Amino acid sequence: MLNAEIIAIGSEMLTPFRVDTNSLWLTERLNSIGIDVKLKTVVGDDESRLEETIRDAIKRSEIVISTGGLGPTEDDITRKIFARVLKRRLILDDGILEALKARFAKRNMPMPEINARQALVMERAEVLPNPNGTAPGMLIAEGKCVIAMLPGPPREMKPMFDASVAPVLKQQVGDVVILRRKLSIFGLTESRTDELAAPVYTKFQNPTTTILFKDGNIELHLTAQSKTDTEANRLLDELSGQLDEVLGEYIYSRRDETLEGVVGELLRWRGYSLATAESCTGGLLAGRVTEVPGSSEYFLEGVVTYSNEAKMRMLGVPKEMLDEHGAVSEPVACAMAAGVRKLAGSTFGIGITGVAGPGGGTEEKPVGLVYIALADEDNVTARKLIFPGDRQFIRTLTVNSALDLLRRRLN
Amino acid sequence: MLNAEIIAIGSEMLTPFRVDTNSLWLTERLNSIGIDVKLKTVVGDDESRLEETIRDAIKRSEIVISTGGLGPTEDDITRKIFARVLKRRLILDDGILEALKARFAKRNMPMPEINARQALVMERAEVLPNPNGTAPGMLIAEGKCVIAMLPGPPREMKPMFDASVAPVLKQQVGDVVILRRKLSIFGLTESRTDELAAPVYTKFQNPTTTILFKDGNIELHLTAQSKTDTEANRLLDELSGQLDEVLGEYIYSRRDETLEGVVGELLRWRGYSLATAESCTGGLLAGRVTEVPGSSEYFLEGVVTYSNEAKMRMLGVPKEMLDEHGAVSEPVACAMAAGVRKLAGSTFGIGITGVAGPGGGTEEKPVGLVYIALADEDNVTARKLIFPGDRQFIRTLTVNSALDLLRRRLN
Repeated sequence: MLNAEIIAIGSEMLTPFRVDTNSLWLTERLNSIGIDVKLKTVVGDDESRLEETIRDAIKRSEIVISTGGLGPTEDDITRKIFARVLKRRLILDDGILEALKARFAKRNMPMPEINARQALVMERAEVLPNPNGTAPGMLIAEGKCVIAMLPGPPREMKPMFDASVAPVLKQQVGDVVILRRKLSIFGLTESRTDELAAPVYTKFQNPTTTILFKDGNIELHLTAQSKTDTEANRLLDELSGQLDEVLGEYIYSRRDETLEGVVGELLRWRGYSLATAESCTGGLLAGRVTEVPGSSEYFLEGVVTYSNEAKMRMLGVPKEMLDEHGAVSEPVACAMAAGVRKLAGSTFGIGITGVAGPGGGTEEKPVGLVYIALADEDNVTARKLIFPGDRQFIRTLTVNSALDLLRRRLN
Repeated sequence: MLNAEIIAIGSEMLTPFRVDTNSLWLTERLNSIGIDVKLKTVVGDDESRLEETIRDAIKRSEIVISTGGLGPTEDDITRKIFARVLKRRLILDDGILEALKARFAKRNMPMPEINARQALVMERAEVLPNPNGTAPGMLIAEGKCVIAMLPGPPREMKPMFDASVAPVLKQQVGDVVILRRKLSIFGLTESRTDELAAPVYTKFQNPTTTILFKDGNIELHLTAQSKTDTEANRLLDELSGQLDEVLGEYIYSRRDETLEGVVGELLRWRGYSLATAESCTGGLLAGRVTEVPGSSEYFLEGVVTYSNEAKMRMLGVPKEMLDEHGAVSEPVACAMAAGVRKLAGSTFGIGITGVAGPGGGTEEKPVGLVYIALADEDNVTARKLIFPGDRQFIRTLTVNSALDLLRRRLN
C-alpha cells in the first residue's frame, strides 16, 4: 500500500477549542483508494516547524497532503514554505488574478490588495480550481512524491480533493478495490463484544476489523482489499457471516443505520405507531425518534411528565400507585406506557422513569436506576436497568435502551 | 513563552473513525500554565516515523508530551523508541512489576507475561504513578527539554498530568498567570459579530481574542497573560467591558454557561415555571431544558404533538384554525403555547411548529420555516424564523432560538 501523510496548517487547531477534522474525511477517502495514512501533523504559523515538517514528510511518504494556510493574510504561509523546501519559484498567475478580481467585482467589492497573494502559483505545479472559494489548490510531483496543497475550509477542500486529487492518486495506486462494512451493535459490554468477536476476526488478515465504542453503542468496521468488487464483497460476506453467528441479535444494523432509523423502518413497514411518555429523559426519546425524516408517519405523540401531578392528569397514573411505589418504579413505568398508548391511540407506548442525577438518588433508588416499559394492546412489560456515569450518559443510555427494547419487540 | 509539542501515539487515530482529543485538554492545561503548543503529531505503530518525530521534537521544543503507546502489546512502542532516540537503557523495575502483579492478583487473574513490559523504566527517568491503570508514565529531563510520556486513556492521562507533570512545568515557567474568559453569544450572524467585535478586540495585544462558531452559537475566548491574577483580571475586565458595549444583549453568558442553564437559573431565581409544546423539534426543547440538573423545579411538563389530532385534543388548538392556517402557522404556534401553559398551569408556555424537512416544504411554507410562540398569563407573542441547513441543523437552531426568546423575556 502507498503511504500518505497529512499536514493540517492553522493556528486555531493549536488552541484547546478546535480539532482538525479534515484529516478524518481525507483518511476515509485515501483508505478507500487503497492508501494508508501513516502520520498526521498539526502546525500553526511557525515557519521553521512547518519547513521541517514538510521536509521530513516529502522524504518518507509517497503522498503528502496539506490543508489550510492558503488564505490571503500574513499568517497563511503554506505556499511560501512549500516553495522554499522544494526550491521552486512562486509566479503570479494572471488568469487566477483576473478570476479573483471578477469574484470580488460580482459582489460589488474591490479586491483587497492582499488577496493577490492567492494568485501565486508554484513553478511546474498543476493549479486546482476552487469553485467554492478564493484560494486555488496545487498538485505537485517531486521525485516519487505527490504533493497536494488544499484549502482549509471543508466545503472548499472536499470537492477539490474529489475532483482533482483523487483521480490522480487512483491512477498511481492501480487496480485496488477497498470496500468497507459496518456492523452496529447494542446491548453488549465492550469486553463481552471482544470476547465473542475476537476469535472470529483475528482469523482474517483481510478484511481487517476495527472496534469502536461510543455511548454504549459498538461499531465493528470491516475493511476488505482486493482486485475486484466481487472478491472484496465475498471476503466481507464471509467475515460478517461468521460474526453474525456469534453476535446475531445484538447487531441492529449492517449498513450504517441509526438505532432510531432501524426502529422507524420496522414501525413504518408494519404500519405500527408509537407514543412516548418520559420522565428522566425529558423528551430526548421523542427527540431521537423524530430525528428520522418522515417519522410523523408512525410517531403520534409524546409527553414529558416530570411532575407526579402530570403523570396522574395526563397519563392516568393512579395516585395510590405513586404513593405506594414512588415515581421511579416498575408499576409507574408500566402505567405511563399504557397511559400514553391509550392517550394517543397508538400501537405501542413507551414509558420511562428513573433517576438521572446528580441529585435525587437514595440507597434504595440510586442515581442511574431506570425503568423502561413497553405497552401494546395486550401486554405491558418493563425492564429495570442500572446505568453508570453522569446525567448526560445515563439519559443517552436510557434512550438507546428504550429504542433497542422496541427493536427487539418488532423483530 | 515556553513552547510545547504533543505527540499522540496510536494507530486508531490514523483511521477515519477516531480523532485525538487528548491534545485539546492538554493544550488547555498547558496554555493556562503559560505554555504555547506549537505542533501536534499523530503517529501509529511505525517505528521510523515515530523516531523521526521524537528526534525533531526534542531538538526544537522545550517541552515534549507524548500520549499513548504504553500498553503491554507489541504495538505499544513508545518506551522503546524514546529510549532509542535518547540513547538510554530500559531497566525492569521490580517495584512496578510487583505492583502490576498485585493489581492482577486482586482481580484473581494471573498477570499475562506481556504486561511485564510495562515495568520497564528508562534510566534517569522519574516514574509517574498511575492509580487508574497499569501503565506508569515517565518524566525525563534531556538537556533543556522536559519530556513527559503519558498513557493514552484520558482517565489515566489527565490525573497523571495534573498530579505529576503540571507542578514541574509550572516551576519551569515561573511567575506567569494566564486567565481566560468566555463570552457566549446568540442571535448574531458570524460576519455581523466580527464586524461589531473586531474594532474592539484588535486594539488589544493582551488579552488575545479567538472567535468560534457552532450551531448558531458564537463564543469569544479572551486570554490574558500577566504576572498577577489581579492584573490579568483587570485586562480581561477592560476588554470584556468594551465588548459588552457593542454586543450587550446578545451575550447570554460571561462564565461558560449553556443557554438552557442561563434560562433555568432565571426561571428558578424568579420562581417561574415552564411547559413546552413541540411539533417539528419533537421533544428536543424539553430534552435541552431538562439537561440541567434540578430542572424539575421549574420544568412542569412537555408535549410532543406531531399530529393535528394531538394538537386539538391535548392543547385545544381549534380545528378551524388548523384548517384555515395549517399546522405550521403563527396562530397555531400561539394556540400551542397558550394551550400547554393552561394544561400544565405554568408561568410560561412555549409552542413550536415548523417544517424541519427534508420533505414537507412548499413554496409558501418552505423547509426551514418555523414559528416559535411564548405565552404568559396576559399575552402570547410569536416569532417567524427561516433557517438554512438540514433537518438536524434546523431543529437545533429552533431549540436555541426558543431558549433565547425566553431568556430575553426573562431579562
